[in-house]
Amino acid sequence: MGKLVIVGTVAFDEIESPFGKTDKILGGAATFIGLAAAQFDVDSAIISIVGDDLPNDYLDLLSNHGMNLDGLQVVKGGKTFYWKGKYHNDLNSRDTLVTELNTLADFNPVVPESYTDAEVVMLGNLHPSVQMSVIDQMTKRPKLIVLDTMNFWMDNALPELKEVIRHIDVITINDEEARQLTGEYALITAASKIQEMGPKYVVIKKGEHGALLFNNENVFFAPALPLEEVFDPTGAGDTFAGGFVGYLTATENLSFNNMKRAIIHGSNLASFCVERFGTERMKNLKKEEINQRLHQFKALTQFDIELQ
Amino acid sequence: MGKLVIVGTVAFDEIESPFGKTDKILGGAATFIGLAAAQFDVDSAIISIVGDDLPNDYLDLLSNHGMNLDGLQVVKGGKTFYWKGKYHNDLNSRDTLVTELNTLADFNPVVPESYTDAEVVMLGNLHPSVQMSVIDQMTKRPKLIVLDTMNFWMDNALPELKEVIRHIDVITINDEEARQLTGEYALITAASKIQEMGPKYVVIKKGEHGALLFNNENVFFAPALPLEEVFDPTGAGDTFAGGFVGYLTATENLSFNNMKRAIIHGSNLASFCVERFGTERMKNLKKEEINQRLHQFKALTQFDIELQ
Repeated sequence: MGKLVIVGTVAFDEIESPFGKTDKILGGAATFIGLAAAQFDVDSAIISIVGDDLPNDYLDLLSNHGMNLDGLQVVKGGKTFYWKGKYHNDLNSRDTLVTELNTLADFNPVVPESYTDAEVVMLGNLHPSVQMSVIDQMTKRPKLIVLDTMNFWMDNALPELKEVIRHIDVITINDEEARQLTGEYALITAASKIQEMGPKYVVIKKGEHGALLFNNENVFFAPALPLEEVFDPTGAGDTFAGGFVGYLTATENLSFNNMKRAIIHGSNLASFCVERFGTERMKNLKKEEINQRLHQFKALTQFDIELQ
Repeated sequence: MGKLVIVGTVAFDEIESPFGKTDKILGGAATFIGLAAAQFDVDSAIISIVGDDLPNDYLDLLSNHGMNLDGLQVVKGGKTFYWKGKYHNDLNSRDTLVTELNTLADFNPVVPESYTDAEVVMLGNLHPSVQMSVIDQMTKRPKLIVLDTMNFWMDNALPELKEVIRHIDVITINDEEARQLTGEYALITAASKIQEMGPKYVVIKKGEHGALLFNNENVFFAPALPLEEVFDPTGAGDTFAGGFVGYLTATENLSFNNMKRAIIHGSNLASFCVERFGTERMKNLKKEEINQRLHQFKALTQFDIELQ
């Protein structure tokens, strides 16, 4: 069992969806990644920054799920990163109403010494220079570095993004972003071009339409589980990534077949995340529920055609 | 090996896409359904109507692929149904530029006597009253009746559509149409409501995002194969349906597991159809190519997580 370093936001989210609205609740990429990875009982550390306005209950929630918080900087008198968004009726699109960087504006990540030899590093969506700084602090090359990013950095910090992309093993990115990064419409061609930029593995997230994993000539696809009720998509992509790295950290097996399993575990966990606002569903998720839904995934996708 | 009755258009298509344009070429739902079903060497009959302006080469193409044309009416001096469309850059949307019904406006389908006892009936997208007339001509209840339809009939012939839907076993419909027909956004809920309207099986087509099969509590999903080059989506849905019914006619097995295989075969054949304009790819498709791509489908979707 390896160690997992997670860098990303721990945040206040405020969400409106067709199903209701929340106050400021716990959110952030590192939060969702950590909660998902926790399902595999990995030794994980959160590298992040918050203000002292973040309730202790929220920090307790993370540490109670086995996350080491030595790398979580709490700025006295500072305010925590805050995002407010509103989802449209189909839940596939949203408007950002408020973004306040607050303490995140001056974030210098520090990896605790006991985690600088971690086997797996998950770089949640942040400025690419912050992501690069975490890689630079690792005292030996991690076996696996996974990076999540978004179009904002392509528009505003492309050289830095390309630099960090050169140093990673897996990139997770959505379909539109893969097209933007490469200028290629066909995802299979876009994935091929991204592999030339550095990462041997490319994960293209398509939201309710599932996710694709590319590695050389290998392609694997996992659908999103069809759900009767999607309540709040916030955190689904991070939960997917957290399940992916959590499973790989726990199993210490980087074969393509095991990567496929990791994709399924990530998709499975993401299907829970969207059923309630924020972290509500993830924080009390039970092993039996997870296992039962894996059976559904298998029934949904497996067939037995005899091939010649 | 059963018999398969296919009712649908045999048409002139004229297509513009970002990759070029065609003259009037062979198209139509029955054409694509028949070419796909032909891959399973089934005994099929086309029920359709054309004018004598349709080149004999086109009719020969159908009969050379084993389709019985006794039910294909050729109207002397009549003109064949003609559709002209233009695809946008992403190929996911298109504009219809011209629709000329011509002989199709007065189509009274006649099922040849030797096919009125067919085991499988595929009702391609047509006026629901025309579809119903074919069902009425069958002398014994077919083992399987599959219906394809579209939003146009929901807007313009909803009572007739609901009547024919009461009499069928499988409906194929796209995601937006499933939502329109039921007023439900979640596809799992929409599929459940459609099952209450008659068909025990609901196939929801999502184009490049794959297809879902619903039957009671069972759900199966097949992705579309990620392709480097999608040239012309015309006929992909009909090719999918043709592969589905062709495989079921050939195997005479209506278990859910076999339906899953039929969905995979349909998706597999559709992945070829879009690689060239019109019927170009389908008319010379080789068994080895099909088999090779089934291997790709298996690699794309199959995983081996041990479940408790």
